[in-house]
Amino acid sequence: MSSSLSGSCQCAVMAEFNRPLRIHEYPLPKELAPGELLIEVELAGICGTDVHLHKGQLDVPLPLIMGHETVGRVAALGDSDTKDWLGRPLAVGDRVAFTVGRPCGKCRYCRVYRLPSRCLHRQAYGVNTPCDKPPHLLGGYGQYQFLHADTAVFKLPDDLPSEAVVGAGCALVTALHGFERMKMHSAESVVVQGAGPVGLAALVCAQEAGARPAIVIGGPRDRLENCRRFGADLTIDIEEMPDAEARRKIVLDATGGLGADVVVECVGMPQAVVEGWELCRDGGKYLVLGHYGDAGPALLNPHLITRKELTVLGSWGSEPQHWTVALELLRTCRDRYPFHELITHRFGLERVNEALDAVARWETSKAVVLPNG
Amino acid sequence: MSSSLSGSCQCAVMAEFNRPLRIHEYPLPKELAPGELLIEVELAGICGTDVHLHKGQLDVPLPLIMGHETVGRVAALGDSDTKDWLGRPLAVGDRVAFTVGRPCGKCRYCRVYRLPSRCLHRQAYGVNTPCDKPPHLLGGYGQYQFLHADTAVFKLPDDLPSEAVVGAGCALVTALHGFERMKMHSAESVVVQGAGPVGLAALVCAQEAGARPAIVIGGPRDRLENCRRFGADLTIDIEEMPDAEARRKIVLDATGGLGADVVVECVGMPQAVVEGWELCRDGGKYLVLGHYGDAGPALLNPHLITRKELTVLGSWGSEPQHWTVALELLRTCRDRYPFHELITHRFGLERVNEALDAVARWETSKAVVLPNG
Amino acid sequence: MSSSLSGSCQCAVMAEFNRPLRIHEYPLPKELAPGELLIEVELAGICGTDVHLHKGQLDVPLPLIMGHETVGRVAALGDSDTKDWLGRPLAVGDRVAFTVGRPCGKCRYCRVYRLPSRCLHRQAYGVNTPCDKPPHLLGGYGQYQFLHADTAVFKLPDDLPSEAVVGAGCALVTALHGFERMKMHSAESVVVQGAGPVGLAALVCAQEAGARPAIVIGGPRDRLENCRRFGADLTIDIEEMPDAEARRKIVLDATGGLGADVVVECVGMPQAVVEGWELCRDGGKYLVLGHYGDAGPALLNPHLITRKELTVLGSWGSEPQHWTVALELLRTCRDRYPFHELITHRFGLERVNEALDAVARWETSKAVVLPNG
Amino acid sequence: MSSSLSGSCQCAVMAEFNRPLRIHEYPLPKELAPGELLIEVELAGICGTDVHLHKGQLDVPLPLIMGHETVGRVAALGDSDTKDWLGRPLAVGDRVAFTVGRPCGKCRYCRVYRLPSRCLHRQAYGVNTPCDKPPHLLGGYGQYQFLHADTAVFKLPDDLPSEAVVGAGCALVTALHGFERMKMHSAESVVVQGAGPVGLAALVCAQEAGARPAIVIGGPRDRLENCRRFGADLTIDIEEMPDAEARRKIVLDATGGLGADVVVECVGMPQAVVEGWELCRDGGKYLVLGHYGDAGPALLNPHLITRKELTVLGSWGSEPQHWTVALELLRTCRDRYPFHELITHRFGLERVNEALDAVARWETSKAVVLPNG
Repeated sequence: MSSSLSGSCQCAVMAEFNRPLRIHEYPLPKELAPGELLIEVELAGICGTDVHLHKGQLDVPLPLIMGHETVGRVAALGDSDTKDWLGRPLAVGDRVAFTVGRPCGKCRYCRVYRLPSRCLHRQAYGVNTPCDKPPHLLGGYGQYQFLHADTAVFKLPDDLPSEAVVGAGCALVTALHGFERMKMHSAESVVVQGAGPVGLAALVCAQEAGARPAIVIGGPRDRLENCRRFGADLTIDIEEMPDAEARRKIVLDATGGLGADVVVECVGMPQAVVEGWELCRDGGKYLVLGHYGDAGPALLNPHLITRKELTVLGSWGSEPQHWTVALELLRTCRDRYPFHELITHRFGLERVNEALDAVARWETSKAVVLPNG
Repeated sequence: MSSSLSGSCQCAVMAEFNRPLRIHEYPLPKELAPGELLIEVELAGICGTDVHLHKGQLDVPLPLIMGHETVGRVAALGDSDTKDWLGRPLAVGDRVAFTVGRPCGKCRYCRVYRLPSRCLHRQAYGVNTPCDKPPHLLGGYGQYQFLHADTAVFKLPDDLPSEAVVGAGCALVTALHGFERMKMHSAESVVVQGAGPVGLAALVCAQEAGARPAIVIGGPRDRLENCRRFGADLTIDIEEMPDAEARRKIVLDATGGLGADVVVECVGMPQAVVEGWELCRDGGKYLVLGHYGDAGPALLNPHLITRKELTVLGSWGSEPQHWTVALELLRTCRDRYPFHELITHRFGLERVNEALDAVARWETSKAVVLPNG
Repeated sequence: MSSSLSGSCQCAVMAEFNRPLRIHEYPLPKELAPGELLIEVELAGICGTDVHLHKGQLDVPLPLIMGHETVGRVAALGDSDTKDWLGRPLAVGDRVAFTVGRPCGKCRYCRVYRLPSRCLHRQAYGVNTPCDKPPHLLGGYGQYQFLHADTAVFKLPDDLPSEAVVGAGCALVTALHGFERMKMHSAESVVVQGAGPVGLAALVCAQEAGARPAIVIGGPRDRLENCRRFGADLTIDIEEMPDAEARRKIVLDATGGLGADVVVECVGMPQAVVEGWELCRDGGKYLVLGHYGDAGPALLNPHLITRKELTVLGSWGSEPQHWTVALELLRTCRDRYPFHELITHRFGLERVNEALDAVARWETSKAVVLPNG
Repeated sequence: MSSSLSGSCQCAVMAEFNRPLRIHEYPLPKELAPGELLIEVELAGICGTDVHLHKGQLDVPLPLIMGHETVGRVAALGDSDTKDWLGRPLAVGDRVAFTVGRPCGKCRYCRVYRLPSRCLHRQAYGVNTPCDKPPHLLGGYGQYQFLHADTAVFKLPDDLPSEAVVGAGCALVTALHGFERMKMHSAESVVVQGAGPVGLAALVCAQEAGARPAIVIGGPRDRLENCRRFGADLTIDIEEMPDAEARRKIVLDATGGLGADVVVECVGMPQAVVEGWELCRDGGKYLVLGHYGDAGPALLNPHLITRKELTVLGSWGSEPQHWTVALELLRTCRDRYPFHELITHRFGLERVNEALDAVARWETSKAVVLPNG
């Protein structure tokens, strides 16, 4: 296939918040400029954030093709000499993943502060890339996705299943970024608050960094079961143990009596932060990883930060480098961290609204859309 | 003077909260064990914390001789071979300062976590050392103070005036500890919230670490004038500019448009933290230095920590090493940082209640008690 | 058993370098002061350093009872209220390990620089503690060992075999200290130069910190086999591959083409450093862990440090905190890191010279002396 | 002036090593693509590296227009909408400086390792940019210089004289990069080895980071006089004090008796590293900043790195961010660091060979070429 294309494809379009997505037919781009790619979507993961987007909780432009956890195959290249982010040649048929965010490379965050995750003009596929104008195909919920030349694309090795990549989703690179910022040491005790995708990813990062022990507080039961399969030394079920003080006692018992060295928030509810600060030992670190959405403030006491000498830090999105780490981790540690087994629900493109509902009802470990059947 | 002592001395004793301190006569210790010292107090600084103690806002044991910012002269040694913390021989007549806190050296914070400022059994002269039992003289508001053998004592060089040491007070070592934990880089922009003693000390630390620019937000006017004398590039008077958004605009203008690299809280009011997080650029650092007292919670939004990728950290007290830095700084930078000129009010021991009142009414830059006239 | 003792015990004494150690009978201490302990030695590890000591390559005082990797049982306490370093009560019969070094706590390194491993007055059992004067019993090669009150003692949990502690020896805490100083991140590629006890310990630390991959260069074959049992992803046998450039090619292939993120020297030969700097990628870290002895200089090019932006760092000895990490690691990861299986040679006290010979000839994985049979 | 140009200009071309540069006339580029700039050179600094290049000590392609410390004015823009690296609009007549290196942004160092200073395909104006093909004008020793669109250009504020920028030269950004990597803390004692441009820049960085004291070892006398003008607390003249041990004693006396916290090598001679390691206290940091050229190896003892627990690190070139810091520092601290007064020698373009000779003979503090008179 050359850079001259024809035909059209089907996509699931969100034209209004809180209304069903509708299947819409868009033309394929007629031509691709050098570096641009057209991807035939194999698996499109449904992230919890998509549910929030659908509810209108984030101010994103419409109409929108959602989907930012995508694996597909190269269908066309603008230039036969295109390489992936690590310099490996790309060809039609190659299976790839790619970063959702495209920083501008020019703003003060990109340049002076070397913090591209906070780029002032960051474009994120499936999030703030409306589809009403060409090239239209800017999200994963469709048969094809268009990629700009500055997208960080990663050719997937044959021994890395697409299910593992989508199973880990954007949670894993997000957690890797957070742990990089936190600079955890090996042998530190870690509590992860939350057993969802971000919590599971944080658990993996904690173990990779040598957590001893790694504790997860969350629910429901099957998610905690996942955490144990992924290596958690101890899980605390918030349904069985609804009293925060009782949970704290278990953490103290497991960490020498004074609290955990590291606590990672992966819940997204402000109240979790209140509990989390109490779980840290003095001098401990608290990573706020789960507050992507603005769930409002909590009554938090700054005196605790002074008196306990806490380090509280946050992390947003990821950089392409975290993808290189994530993909290698997924490839080499499939037995230890079976992300590929997390996909519990698969839907055709026409059933995308069912998929969103299932995720919203927490029925899934991971749900995916298969736009090409 | 040998280790056999006699006589008595006068001290100002707080027997009840919110009641006037009364002068009480205590015997000098009859004998000093090896390493113990008796100090004739020259200057006893009145810290803002003493006002809080007097109001009963911290749960300290009574009766108490307050005073934890003290310079005096060695009146007697338990052992003629006693050395100061840096290994210099001590003799009767030597002028000394000393750390207020004595960590136990045995608890998990002292040992495993290497965080002696959070020692579980920390004794702090003038704070949690009641005077009803021998050796009684455990605070600075008295003619003599007793020092245990494990106190970190510093012999003062002749070219370092006592006024500089007490003028800087416990604020400077506290700020040095905080900045050590924060690891600020040179050329970072810094906003200090608060122009009191802690704010002034933080300003000095910021400049020593290469802040560019160093901005102070606070009041009243004479405190800001102090800040400018101590080198602040810009001061913002909260009385003249009561609108937080207006203050933020000035900070943005002075820091490249997106906020400061570093913001240091030295106010002690929870609401300052709310404002402070807005003053940080994304990826910035926020040091909570001023929340020694528990002033209750504020409505703080964890989403900001995630989205702005903030690092929020606290620091409590200090270690002896910060004293070595502080004393050398005071000795060599007297022109740049004229802490010795901050003492605006001097009181005899019998007027200690007046002194506390003056500090409580924010009438002083620094007030001191001269227990021996 | 009270604090009043009687009787004597046998020890192996080095009276001259390069001459056989001789069994000597020393009296047990008649009395123990508070905090002091008498230990009945169970296992005394023979460290490669002991061979160097015996050859007179380090300037240590004689006569000397060597032995600084010891596990034993408490035979007597100076004070029934004695606790171990983590605050757990000690009683006669308790099995313990302890740190070899006792820093003075008063010198500039102990205090100002917070670097007790470089204490100016550090006492090390079995190294610089001559036995000609009471309490004599200051090394592990004897039936009993005396411990001063300031020794960091660790009560061993029942599920931690003595063989694991002595099998790991001083190498593990040394490596933990080095990795703590280096602040390795997870997912960094690591090359360990050397497959002896220090190399094996470095391999474990690298894996605990998330090394990906972990490569060992060394020999002989059975030591590399140990490395693979302990989890090395790749081993390079220097006997099979004597050409440094060939080894470098394998490392480049395994690390993305430009060199390893981290290289750890555990060989003790200066030439290894020359090779090691070539194995690092630009911007990489090089930890010199194996140069305890002074093996002389090598021709090293500082231009490489500038041009490659290397970070080269060293680490000496350990702190008690590293023992807490080591003992917990040994307890919980026995399957992953079977240090307890490393002991290949056991000798009675009277055969201690045979033991030293066996270690000198590299015939052992780990040799131990059992002074009480 | 539009993007359509005409005419020619004179440049000093190095066609052979060790032979005089000759003036050559090159056409101006006929057209500039978007982002490209043509600069009329005002001042071209002569760096010590240029002397090494001229002697053929680095393997650079010929013919070459040297000059990588340049200030000039925008003579033409490829696009009227061009902005500088900080986003400020550029127009004809604007005075600018720019980074010498242009990393590719695509190699493993640029992407994975985030170390653009070690880009595998780095282009450096005046160093590895031969002038035989268009656009020819790729160095500072000429009337005009061409800038590629990806060059980091900085518009100079009116209150920042060109003499300050060229006086600081590439040494200041290089030193800023090194100090950023080293993470020095305030109140650390610093020894700078070398009093040339790099040493002076390191002295400034040390003071900006709070060095206490800042000591320079070097010569000749007038360079040390510069160091004192720039704030050195102590200078040691190697001509007056040729004995390394005597120099070490002075350093010990000035730093508490055990050595400096930080030593920075700015000499470029391997032997300096041998001396420098002896000047560090145990646990100290040693920054190798001056070994840009390969001056061969020295006999260095790795045992020192282990025993002294040194951190030895290097730094190469700089990133645009260091320019933002440098320019702001030069603008605001002209009195403290009078770089603008360092220019002692000025030459017209036709006397460029005299200029190189003067620098080679160390007769200059800073020499510049004024290609347009």
